[in-house]
Amino acid sequence: MADVSVVARQLERLLGDRFSIAPAVREHHGRDESWHPPQIPDAVCFPESTAEVANLVEICAANDTPIVPFGAGTSLEGHVLAPRGGVCVDLSRMNRIVKIRADDLDATVEAGVTRLQLNRHARDLGLFFPVDPGADATLGGMAATRASGTNAVRYGTMRENVLALEVVTADGQVIRTGRRARKSSAGYDLTRLFVGSEGTLGLLTEVTLRLYGLPESISSAVVSFPDVRSAVDAAIETIQAGITVARIELLDAVMMACVNRYSKLDHPEKPTLFLEFHGSRSGVKEQAAEVGEIVRQHGGGDFRWAVDAEERERLWQARHDAFYAALALRPGAKGWTTDVCVPISRLADCIVATRRDLDRFAIPTPMVGHVGDGNFHLIMLIEPDDSEELRQAEGIHERLVARALEMDGTCTGEHGVGLGKRRFLSAEHGGGLEVMRSLKKALDPHNLMNPGKIV
Amino acid sequence: MADVSVVARQLERLLGDRFSIAPAVREHHGRDESWHPPQIPDAVCFPESTAEVANLVEICAANDTPIVPFGAGTSLEGHVLAPRGGVCVDLSRMNRIVKIRADDLDATVEAGVTRLQLNRHARDLGLFFPVDPGADATLGGMAATRASGTNAVRYGTMRENVLALEVVTADGQVIRTGRRARKSSAGYDLTRLFVGSEGTLGLLTEVTLRLYGLPESISSAVVSFPDVRSAVDAAIETIQAGITVARIELLDAVMMACVNRYSKLDHPEKPTLFLEFHGSRSGVKEQAAEVGEIVRQHGGGDFRWAVDAEERERLWQARHDAFYAALALRPGAKGWTTDVCVPISRLADCIVATRRDLDRFAIPTPMVGHVGDGNFHLIMLIEPDDSEELRQAEGIHERLVARALEMDGTCTGEHGVGLGKRRFLSAEHGGGLEVMRSLKKALDPHNLMNPGKIV
Repeated sequence: MADVSVVARQLERLLGDRFSIAPAVREHHGRDESWHPPQIPDAVCFPESTAEVANLVEICAANDTPIVPFGAGTSLEGHVLAPRGGVCVDLSRMNRIVKIRADDLDATVEAGVTRLQLNRHARDLGLFFPVDPGADATLGGMAATRASGTNAVRYGTMRENVLALEVVTADGQVIRTGRRARKSSAGYDLTRLFVGSEGTLGLLTEVTLRLYGLPESISSAVVSFPDVRSAVDAAIETIQAGITVARIELLDAVMMACVNRYSKLDHPEKPTLFLEFHGSRSGVKEQAAEVGEIVRQHGGGDFRWAVDAEERERLWQARHDAFYAALALRPGAKGWTTDVCVPISRLADCIVATRRDLDRFAIPTPMVGHVGDGNFHLIMLIEPDDSEELRQAEGIHERLVARALEMDGTCTGEHGVGLGKRRFLSAEHGGGLEVMRSLKKALDPHNLMNPGKIV
Repeated sequence: MADVSVVARQLERLLGDRFSIAPAVREHHGRDESWHPPQIPDAVCFPESTAEVANLVEICAANDTPIVPFGAGTSLEGHVLAPRGGVCVDLSRMNRIVKIRADDLDATVEAGVTRLQLNRHARDLGLFFPVDPGADATLGGMAATRASGTNAVRYGTMRENVLALEVVTADGQVIRTGRRARKSSAGYDLTRLFVGSEGTLGLLTEVTLRLYGLPESISSAVVSFPDVRSAVDAAIETIQAGITVARIELLDAVMMACVNRYSKLDHPEKPTLFLEFHGSRSGVKEQAAEVGEIVRQHGGGDFRWAVDAEERERLWQARHDAFYAALALRPGAKGWTTDVCVPISRLADCIVATRRDLDRFAIPTPMVGHVGDGNFHLIMLIEPDDSEELRQAEGIHERLVARALEMDGTCTGEHGVGLGKRRFLSAEHGGGLEVMRSLKKALDPHNLMNPGKIV
């Protein structure tokens, strides 16, 4: 900050006690759920409206002060950390559901609304919002990181499900990136430019999202396999057959042991697919029969079904708690999460080669994957103070990304770049990275919007 | 052009007889299928590789010469016209299908490959590319205008179906905007930025696209209604019920008369829906039964089915020829095509109010709509030399766009901005237009890439 006291005075005048420099508040906002060491902002703001956000951005811009947005703090890549200090903008009080339009299958929410909050309201209208990263993240944060999760294989990611955004730009202007029409060719796709921009081009204050009718029928099933390759091959073949499963998730044997222990379940501790089918009653049956046949051909066991809502809830809660289940495997450890995504035909090769690499080290590493998308995560359980382990994890991560890029994949399928993946962008994008830098410079010439992230 | 002779000499050295200043060649490249009067480039290039495109962009950039890309010339908004002269880059010789990867359900093609050409190859592998604007446009042109068409209601537009692009930037660099992974959070979404950028930010030279397995079963049906509102309401209810029809197209009574005459069919000359269902045999039956029930409730008649491939082909060819069928209604006329898209709940209101406005004038105006997306087209058949008709058409268009914007819709669902819709962008985007201008300035500081389009 240029002059902390000037900015602080102006922000306090704007926000009253919703501006804080209390150490505990700042510390809470300088960390996320990742292994990245905390980096603490100089102050934290709690705006309650877009107008307040615009005002505070103007104040920060006039005083050369960095701005770091904060939603639920569930980032796994250090997005909310403040490497250059500055003002953290906690959007969690902007949590109004502005409107749900059942007729148009869409909703407009403030950026601080969480996905579970939206879904509680949508359910009453027979609707749901499918993008589901596990954590109860804010929808603004999910848009900012282009999040996805377990349902993406059928319903797409935030890229496909954000219709429009309200954004406060780096100079404090309020813009809307699009309209509610389902498609448009009216100029550059500002919505998609801001989705995934991680707060580096502007602050997202309102999100308009697609909703979907609750399926007539939902069934979930769990099935285990003799080895990882068989499980992955079954998933690949399901996708290649064009079967529109709603979820197809892989948990490896190590992860199944963690999940059994953490969520008190008794599944075989073998590579396992968690599946979900959405559709009409007969459609779900048909899909399940088709997938069942593929599973059998790959040596999978029988489906263990979860049909009623409570059983399904328990099953997916266990899947969503996988990160915490993994952490519990090694108390005191931090989870270094990787996130490569590759073309589906290369997924089994990528996973098998990665496991071979992991086997050379002693770092406990459960694995989960949104295998229908070609995306999987290692959760390397490291002792954050053990520099040798950090070095090993770094090496494993680097080789994994190199492997994924060589397969025409990406270093991050859904967690975003943040602090942890910047160094891979040059290898991934080549000259495209220069184009990204030009965009950043054009929209945030003084580099105040979440500086140090992405570019 | 700064100095025509210098540029011409350099381009001729690069391309030999694939560089032309012949009047007939220039004239052919200065017009599209719209009512916009021709604007002729100074020269036309026919590159055969990305390297050649990069070289010619460098030559033009060094000589301050505008560059206008040209695909199949099927634009309806003057995209390929050369208001500032310069060099037209005809990409039609870059027509190699680089690779179809059946295992990954994707394909990489040069920008000049047309959608029918790709589909002929994909079909042999049991695959297809769904985006279908009617005309046999090039896939580069379709990406550049964010095209969609009849299948978008189920499969999405070019926005959802382009995985990555190869682009020659304004300074002659070759970049790739993304990789083949199905999802990525690795920085700004360059792919979506260039999709729909209409050649104003760079030239697209290669396109990587999603493919889909050919459905097990396809059925098409035609059904007529007593009035337009009933037909639209049936379409709206189908979408709201979450039924994943593959196509749901509206042709109004005037258009049906045109189509009957042009394609020698004998459908009732009433507002009509053309439908298509994709899926398993039982899934298609189930969908058809559900839609049939909705149709009956809205006073629609019985489905007239087209099940075998030849009948279906004939039906959709008639739909695709609608633009030409409309032109044939008034020989010598030009078609002024509108393209608004609105949230589905407002579609019937928008269409009915628009028809009321049209009824005040004598301009023959058939209507077609991709009503599942909330998108519809008037084809105003105007005498291009009749200034009174032009004025009337302009007024109708202006009121239509104002109506759509008021409903939170867009001035263009799929045809792009080109020359014809620039003046609506300020009303549609407000401050967002300034952001678009900043992006243009960042990536094309000398305004040489298709100048005069979009911004």
